Amino acid sequence: MKIKTRIENLRLRHTFTISRSSEDVVPVVMVEVEHEGITGTGESSPSRYYGETAETVRSALESLEGWLATAHPFERQTVLEEALPRLSGLRGALCALDLALHDWAGRKLGAPLHRLLGLSPDRLPLTSFTIGIDTIETMVAKLNEAKDMPLIKIKLGTPHDVEIVRALRRESQAVFRVDANCAWSAREAIEKSHELKALGVELIEQPLPPDQLEAMEEVHAKSALPVFADESSVTPLDVPGLRGRFHGINVKLVKCGGIEPALRMIHLARTFGMKIMIGCMIESSVACTAAAQIGPLVDHLDIDGPLLITNDPYRGVEYLGGRLKLPPGPGLGVEKRTSR
Amino acid sequence: MKIKTRIENLRLRHTFTISRSSEDVVPVVMVEVEHEGITGTGESSPSRYYGETAETVRSALESLEGWLATAHPFERQTVLEEALPRLSGLRGALCALDLALHDWAGRKLGAPLHRLLGLSPDRLPLTSFTIGIDTIETMVAKLNEAKDMPLIKIKLGTPHDVEIVRALRRESQAVFRVDANCAWSAREAIEKSHELKALGVELIEQPLPPDQLEAMEEVHAKSALPVFADESSVTPLDVPGLRGRFHGINVKLVKCGGIEPALRMIHLARTFGMKIMIGCMIESSVACTAAAQIGPLVDHLDIDGPLLITNDPYRGVEYLGGRLKLPPGPGLGVEKRTSR
Repeated sequence: MKIKTRIENLRLRHTFTISRSSEDVVPVVMVEVEHEGITGTGESSPSRYYGETAETVRSALESLEGWLATAHPFERQTVLEEALPRLSGLRGALCALDLALHDWAGRKLGAPLHRLLGLSPDRLPLTSFTIGIDTIETMVAKLNEAKDMPLIKIKLGTPHDVEIVRALRRESQAVFRVDANCAWSAREAIEKSHELKALGVELIEQPLPPDQLEAMEEVHAKSALPVFADESSVTPLDVPGLRGRFHGINVKLVKCGGIEPALRMIHLARTFGMKIMIGCMIESSVACTAAAQIGPLVDHLDIDGPLLITNDPYRGVEYLGGRLKLPPGPGLGVEKRTSR
Repeated sequence: MKIKTRIENLRLRHTFTISRSSEDVVPVVMVEVEHEGITGTGESSPSRYYGETAETVRSALESLEGWLATAHPFERQTVLEEALPRLSGLRGALCALDLALHDWAGRKLGAPLHRLLGLSPDRLPLTSFTIGIDTIETMVAKLNEAKDMPLIKIKLGTPHDVEIVRALRRESQAVFRVDANCAWSAREAIEKSHELKALGVELIEQPLPPDQLEAMEEVHAKSALPVFADESSVTPLDVPGLRGRFHGINVKLVKCGGIEPALRMIHLARTFGMKIMIGCMIESSVACTAAAQIGPLVDHLDIDGPLLITNDPYRGVEYLGGRLKLPPGPGLGVEKRTSR
């Protein structure tokens, strides 16, 4: 198969701030694989946190060109297994290739990915909509722009976290989730869980840094709310160690390396009786539609990437408030926009 | 979709004896699901050991008829999840439905199952051929009938196990595996492992009964050969508890409930660094071809069902000695034989 890559600069509707960083434009890597006249598309939103940039991801993918020339896209699992070491272990790059191969297979067979996997599209959970860190006034304004969203995810990790949630709660009856992105201590997490529960928060994402797994045992035992692993839950190999430390995991395609490892993480978490959320980065309709295709397997969705950007290069999953509608087309079901 | 079931009596080439039972004819349940003019076929070889008979499996499947009438075969994962309680937890019955739905999907999409799953058919391991318990003379005669098989699995659990293997070794340079089917103690397992290793045995299956998981820790630590779980490794939920107790697991479709749970067991075992074998019961080309379709994911195969019977109702995977050739057709790729 042939491979082509390019960088797209996604423009954010609002500057997006989480506990450790702030962004206005996010460069993502788009990949196309072509074989027998059919093109499959994938995407990777590189993460500095996981040691990636658009340039390293793109050049890792381009280095596969000669090797992929003799590989068949239907031998997806073999190709992906052998690609990871060739990509120097960059799972974000693997994700782009994984999505492109799944898109290719679905287009070749004339079926949407959820159908290849035997999933029921009407089992998709609602998605949440994310509000990044800002002044309380601006966060309230962003919330008021999202009046039709029944689930709101609030980024925390400030000196006045509970105050933020209290201010937002005054404006909205939506269900809230909070994401501390590693910014809390175990004591803070436990204390805040009780206040947040009283404010209608349903779950907490990644309260502590991932190197504090042992401290999570106390949080797991004493938190008033379920705690979900995100930075602690990168690949399938992480999942067994999260039992008794988190109630659920956040699976992100670009973090684990695409659909194949995401399915493994989902199976592992289910076996351990953990809840599962699928999340996203700042990314276009390509990656978020791929995530939605496997959404019927999980309990919670947080795939609002396309809602946070103003220049989505693709059309894919549709948003009706928090309700998702999978596109009818084959593969991922995404289509390039002709004008934007 | 519509469902039809029937019982086929598979006739054994030789009376088949393992440590706990002996058989000449094995009744299996065949299932056909039909939707939009396409028929998918599945099979279940019921196991008394797991509390099943052909009659209980068949009547459980027939009880689904009304419910399945409004279900769509493409919503496979939802149907199978909801079917298990309706089948009173009979995983053998679930397996037949799971295989039929995978066959249906592949036929509908015009692709063999291994292709839907993105697997490389040239990655199939060799299969072993099984020799049941008998007099040493008869076991030697059976071995001599299987001169073209490079891997031989020997059923043990007699008062003279090592003597059997020694007699067979005199006749053959094949790699041997042994299966004690729960008949040994921990001390016996450890002692025999050393003698068997010297006789060119590569692995031991299920030395102790499944209720002796703790005793397996010593066997795991002291065995000269890798030990594989079979009766201890029924469903995905069993796999986490096998770490540090077995080096590998034997996944059987009819034991776990079909392709979907088999994939979960494979992912779990891989995550835990365990080796994986796919095995079979006395079953026809339907179930063994289904097993072969996912064979590229595993390390060892023991899917010799069709070689042990004289009246296989289907044509499917082909055997060239221990080498398997997947059929080119869509779905499982099996075809009913017109005469036999």
